[in-house]
Formats: sequence, C-alpha cells, structure tokens
Amino acid sequence: MIEGTICTPETVDKIGCYGNALVCVNQQGLIASVLFPNNSQYGEIKQTAISQGNYHQLAADEYLLPGYVDLHVHAPQWPQAGLALDLPLADWLDHYTFPLESKCSDLNYSKTIYDSLVKELLSQGTTTALMFGTIYNDSNIILAKACLEYGLRGFIGQVAMDNADQTPAYYRNQSAKDAIDATELFIKQLQKLSNDADRVVPVITPRFVPSCSDACLQGLGQLANKYNVPVQTHVSESSWEHGYVLDRFKATDTSVLDQFGLLTDRTILMHATHLTDDDMDLLAKREAALAHCPISNAYFGNGVMRVKEILAKQIKLGLGTDISGGYSSSIYHNIRQAVISSRMLEDGVDTTKQATTRGVANSRINIATAFYMATVGGAEALHLNTGRIKEGYKADFQVVKSHPSVITLSDEQMIERILYQTQQSDIKQVYIDGNLVYCKD
Amino acid sequence: MIEGTICTPETVDKIGCYGNALVCVNQQGLIASVLFPNNSQYGEIKQTAISQGNYHQLAADEYLLPGYVDLHVHAPQWPQAGLALDLPLADWLDHYTFPLESKCSDLNYSKTIYDSLVKELLSQGTTTALMFGTIYNDSNIILAKACLEYGLRGFIGQVAMDNADQTPAYYRNQSAKDAIDATELFIKQLQKLSNDADRVVPVITPRFVPSCSDACLQGLGQLANKYNVPVQTHVSESSWEHGYVLDRFKATDTSVLDQFGLLTDRTILMHATHLTDDDMDLLAKREAALAHCPISNAYFGNGVMRVKEILAKQIKLGLGTDISGGYSSSIYHNIRQAVISSRMLEDGVDTTKQATTRGVANSRINIATAFYMATVGGAEALHLNTGRIKEGYKADFQVVKSHPSVITLSDEQMIERILYQTQQSDIKQVYIDGNLVYCKD
Repeated sequence: MIEGTICTPETVDKIGCYGNALVCVNQQGLIASVLFPNNSQYGEIKQTAISQGNYHQLAADEYLLPGYVDLHVHAPQWPQAGLALDLPLADWLDHYTFPLESKCSDLNYSKTIYDSLVKELLSQGTTTALMFGTIYNDSNIILAKACLEYGLRGFIGQVAMDNADQTPAYYRNQSAKDAIDATELFIKQLQKLSNDADRVVPVITPRFVPSCSDACLQGLGQLANKYNVPVQTHVSESSWEHGYVLDRFKATDTSVLDQFGLLTDRTILMHATHLTDDDMDLLAKREAALAHCPISNAYFGNGVMRVKEILAKQIKLGLGTDISGGYSSSIYHNIRQAVISSRMLEDGVDTTKQATTRGVANSRINIATAFYMATVGGAEALHLNTGRIKEGYKADFQVVKSHPSVITLSDEQMIERILYQTQQSDIKQVYIDGNLVYCKD
Repeated sequence: MIEGTICTPETVDKIGCYGNALVCVNQQGLIASVLFPNNSQYGEIKQTAISQGNYHQLAADEYLLPGYVDLHVHAPQWPQAGLALDLPLADWLDHYTFPLESKCSDLNYSKTIYDSLVKELLSQGTTTALMFGTIYNDSNIILAKACLEYGLRGFIGQVAMDNADQTPAYYRNQSAKDAIDATELFIKQLQKLSNDADRVVPVITPRFVPSCSDACLQGLGQLANKYNVPVQTHVSESSWEHGYVLDRFKATDTSVLDQFGLLTDRTILMHATHLTDDDMDLLAKREAALAHCPISNAYFGNGVMRVKEILAKQIKLGLGTDISGGYSSSIYHNIRQAVISSRMLEDGVDTTKQATTRGVANSRINIATAFYMATVGGAEALHLNTGRIKEGYKADFQVVKSHPSVITLSDEQMIERILYQTQQSDIKQVYIDGNLVYCKD
C-alpha cells in the first residue's frame, strides 16, 4: 500500500491530481482500491497495512504516477543512442545500425547490452516496453530473460527482414521461410518462458515493408492470424520509405500491411508521419494502434505526425523513444517534444510564408494529452490494463520527486512542472505489478 | 591546473576533443596554456602544480567543456518555469508573467528567488547569463549581488516599460523619464558594485518595442551611446509582436531599434523568428547579435529562426533558455532543440504538402554548431573572451561525467553523446575565472 499524492490521466486532455490517496494493491499486482480520507474505512485499512509492514508513505514532495509505456525501442541499438544522428535514414541503417545489430549474434554481448538497457528503461519510469530485437532467436531470448530478471514488462519482436535488395548479406534472413520459421519458433519459445501472459510477450515484427519480401509479409500475416499475438512495424516513416512502398506496391504501406493480414487490432505501427486520410480511416476500422516518436521523427521522419487528427479519429496512440533513432531513453523527453512538435505543426516553421498557410490549424496538443499517450494510449495499444492509478488496473507506478518551488503551486501546476522538468535522477522508485523493481540510491 | 580530456569548439561545425590536456590557469583567471604530453615542459609543469597542491586530474569518464553562455533569462520568471505554457504570448504576459514579476518589489522575495536561480544556472553548466530583471532597481541589485556571491558572470537588465497601452498599471514605469532615469541609475549602481568589468554588467533593456513609448526608446538609445554598455530586447518574436510594430511604426522592429540608436555592436536581440532579409543585413552591418531560444520559440515564436542563414551572414548568434518562456534552465536542452528545430525547418512539418515545398532547404545544423552557439556565439555576443578552452580565454569550465558505454567510442562520438545525453546530475564541477563555483555532492 502506498499513501501520497497521485497523478493519473482522466481524459485525453485532463490529468487528475489528488492528495492523501491510499493505493491498495492485491496479491495479483492489481490496484484493489484507491481510497481517500472521506472514506469511512480509510483509517482502518491504513492501520492494518501499517501493522502488517505493508505501508509506504510518500514524502510531501513525492508524487505517484503511472509507469510509462514506451511503444518503440530498438533494443540492439541501445549502444549507439545519441550517436550518428546526422545521416539520412537509409545511410544510417547501412553504415551504423545494421552492423551494430548484427553484433547480437554474440550472446555474451547481447546479455551485456540488454541488461544495461532494461535497467536504464526502468530508471526512466518506463514499466512496459514494446521492443524490436534482432533476427537472432537466442539473443532475443536473452532480452526476454533480462526483462523477467529485472521486472520490465517486455513485448519483444523477432525481427524479420529477408529482402536482399534492402538488407545487407551479413544481416538478413536467408529466405522468407527462414524469417517466418524463426518468428513462429520465437512465439513458442516466449510463450514457454513465462506463465504470465503479460510479462514477456512475443511480437510479430517485419522490420518494415521495404526490408521484407511479399512471401515473408504473407507468412507473417498468417502467423498473426494463427497466434493472435501483437504485430509491430514501421510505417510511412520518411519521404524515402513512404515513396519506396508506393513504387513497389502502388499502395501506401498501411494498405499493403492490411492486404497481407498484418493490420489487426493488436498491430502497433511506428512513426506514421506520412499517413493519408484513407490510411487513417483504415487504421481506425481495423482498430490498429500507432506509436508517436517525436524526437526520432525530427531526425528521420521528414514531417510531423498529425496527432490531433489521429486522436480525433479515436485511433489508439502512444509514445515511443525509438532508441536509437531517438537519442533519449526517456519518455519524459518525448512527452515534451510531442507538445513542441505539435505546436510547430500548428504554427508552421517557415516565417517567410503567411501565418495562415504555413502551419496546420488546430494541431497543438497540451502536455496532459502527451501524458495520456505515454500512459493510457500505450496501454490500450498493447491491450493492457495499465496506465492509470485506478481500481482494477495493474500496479505499475513511478514515484517522482518534484523540484522545490519558491512559490505555492496548485496541484495542476505541480503536475505540469513535473512533466516538464522531471529528470532521471528525480525518479525515486518504480513498481511493476506492485513489486519494487527500481529504487534510486 | 586541470588535467584531462577537453572538448572545445574549433569552427562553427567542428568540436575538438583532446586527451591528456594540461590546462593551466593564471592568477587573473585566464587560461595561461593548454599543454599536451608532446610538449617538453609538460612533465615539469605538471609536477610543479602537484607539489603546489594546484592540480586536479579528471577521472577517465570526465570531460572538461567550456561553461555555457545563456543569452536569455528572465530572472524574475524563474518561479514559473514549466508552467502556464498553453497561452498565447499576450495572455501569458498579462495573466501570469506581469503579476509574477511585480512581486519583486518585495526584496526578501527577490533574494529567495534570485539565490535559487543563480545556483540553478551554475548547476546546469552555465557560467555566464544575460538576464532581464524587473523595473525595480533595488531588486535588480539583489540579483547582481547573488551573481557576485555565487560566482555567476551576470549581465543584468533594468527593464524599461512605460507604454500604458501594453503594460498593466501595477507594473510599469510611470513615464519615459522614469524608465530612462532608472536605467541610468542602475548603470551607475552596477558599475560601483564590482571592480571587475566582466563580473556583473548593466544592460539597457527596453522590454520590447510594444511596451515602450517612443520617448523611452529615444532616451535609452542616448544612454547606449553615452555609456557604451550592452543593450538587450526581444525582437520579431511572434506574429502578433512583429505585426504590432509594423502597424505602429510602418517598419520592422529591427529598423525601429536602429532609428532609436539601440542597434549597436553591443546589442543582443532575442528570438528573431520573423526577421526579414533587410533586417538581417542591417544586423550584420551594425554587428549586433542574436539569441536563439528554440524551446521558447516553439511556444511563443510562431516559427523557427533561420539559424543557418544568420550564421552564413556572419551575424553573432548564441543560445538562450528564455526562462520561463522556455520551461528548462538547461542550455543542453536548448542545444538539442536547436538541432531538432533546424531539421524541422528544413524538412517542413505538414506532410500533406510536397517534400520540395514544405520546408526550407539547407536549414539543418548539427550538434557541433549548436555547441558553438552555446559557447563561442554567446561569448562573442557579449564581447567576452570565454567559450573556448584555449590560451588567453577565461577559465570558465564545466566538468561533465559521461554515461557508461558498452561499446568503444571515438572522441567525436563521445562528445556527440555528451551533448545529447548530459543531465544536470552529470555536471560535477563548474569553474568561473578559474574558481570552483559549483561542485555536485
């Protein structure tokens, strides 16, 4: 049981902030109840918890927030986060990223980097991560084991990439069948690794349409149907990528994925900066989800995702760091950039153009909406009952120490400041399923 | 004397990174020499320093960087950093900012917030700050004393704002004469406060053109001529502000400032997101400087500063946090956003437009350029010999602890990562004029 001030998303643009909340967690790691002093049982329940040694009171300057869902991490790219960000997407892949990912054929190396990554994500307040692994099953299993060892809720993708035109010989599946078989094997391996269906979850992961043959996409679509597991891939990320798929299929990649059976209500598509209106309608119809990666998109996206429009169409939408297309492992940094990028979409960038034509009216989001995406949005994308501090939800929390204020702030101001100013060192504890998985110092 | 790896700007887009540097500081707080092991005197000089107890060796994971110059801070707005960022500029000023600034008529309150701010800036690696104070002389003196007490190099502006149409009755100079007299008094007060001309420096500070009467601007221009001190003001910040000045004067505010004698080689203009080509040419001719505040501009600028063009015209250009139009006190955060915003200017934001028309080609800067702005650019704007680790420059440094890397990185990669990932808690020591002014833990 934790007592203190809680901050939880209420609607898409409103955060609830409540003092003296008593958050009770049951044996299953779910929030059994959230009580306030006006509840007649408050005192008794609190006393019982204290007497059982099951009570943690937050300090006056600490706040309890839901843990974040990071919808896009390339786990094998963690060693190059913050590096080589000056290249176009295709060069960046060929010269830096593919060589780096291929190092994961070394399992000792895999363990070193995955242990480091998982601990890093937890220390940033991330409690669930949807990750790309590599093409190597054994290395991906090491990532899954690191999640189980340190407690991170991990959705892990066995990457499929067999198109010889778009992948290097030293790092590709040798055939469509190879890619499909490796994916199916990984699904079985992961389902065997953990009894809890929500702790490590296999994800069908065509890298993106350009790196896969038609046969590979076809076979992965069949697996999606057979196993009903999540599907993830990049979509309409850059001018180049969007154009490549249009050339090859005479269709956008959203519709191509749909043709291959890869657009399900368990699909999460990353970036999506170049979606058409038809793409959005199809996504809404299939109940697929999107991952917004605003820092990465500034480097590789060639444009800003139309977040406000996507939310208005009721498409599930969360946030991702996109390590290492994004330099930061922090969802806080992406919350801030999501707000900034939305304002730049609204206002436009080129002031030699008229104010009325340079931007897209009504595009800005506020920080409450970005917080919603980082919590509820990501949770809905993964069909998880997490992301809120509310009865029945998973007890996935972060305890954040606020910065001292020289003036008195309202609860609304305090949560705004927390979202704008929290640093990694301010995150004091992280809980997943009610278990303490990270404690600073 | 400090021994370790130094990272110093070399050109506008190249950073030098050198191991085993011996940085010798003289009694005047200047860098006397930077020696490397191939120098025949290296060993002897090092031994002498050690025997005199004047030697500090950095750890293997620590790097010595120049301290940053923050060219735009509203000191009295520090208590609301990270708050109320959803309003347009005019509303934000009227409802939050002017009431907050007016609280500085209370000198105890002033001392509390200015002590807090100065310590915060130092802990972010900022060694020089160009600041707006308030209209209150006594409160601004408290800010100057806080700079002297804690060691921050402070350029401080007595704010002038007398236009009754654009300022609230409770927070304005009662006449142009009042504003001018208060400014002149402050220049004299500050020149008396410190013998060192570079420690606390008075700055002529019309808030911005809209908040000043013609007579006020005229009188401040005369003071700029009489005292040859720096001048600072906001310029062409937002669509509203740029349009207001065009309406009132039938001229842009850059040319209006010039007409009033306020555009000198010691002038620093903030934001400048809406400059015309003629404005830029005039700035270059007058050798005036600009302050780029990329985080703040996303909220209040209605567009992106054309940094690449400004640098090509050889206009002096530094970075500013713009506390509290910007939510962050960190120049690191603004270095990152400067790169991101420049890429968004190049690529454009609205992907429903063609790639060739939605952005401004050749606008992107790399992180070395942003680092140059944060150091050399800011120093040149203020006519200070700081911002480089080089013989003859001021010994203004920050010692930064790098994050552990699981792969071997080159020096170039290491400094890129430091600039992308350094957090406040990674800044271990800060030196100004060779004196230790901040030490973490």
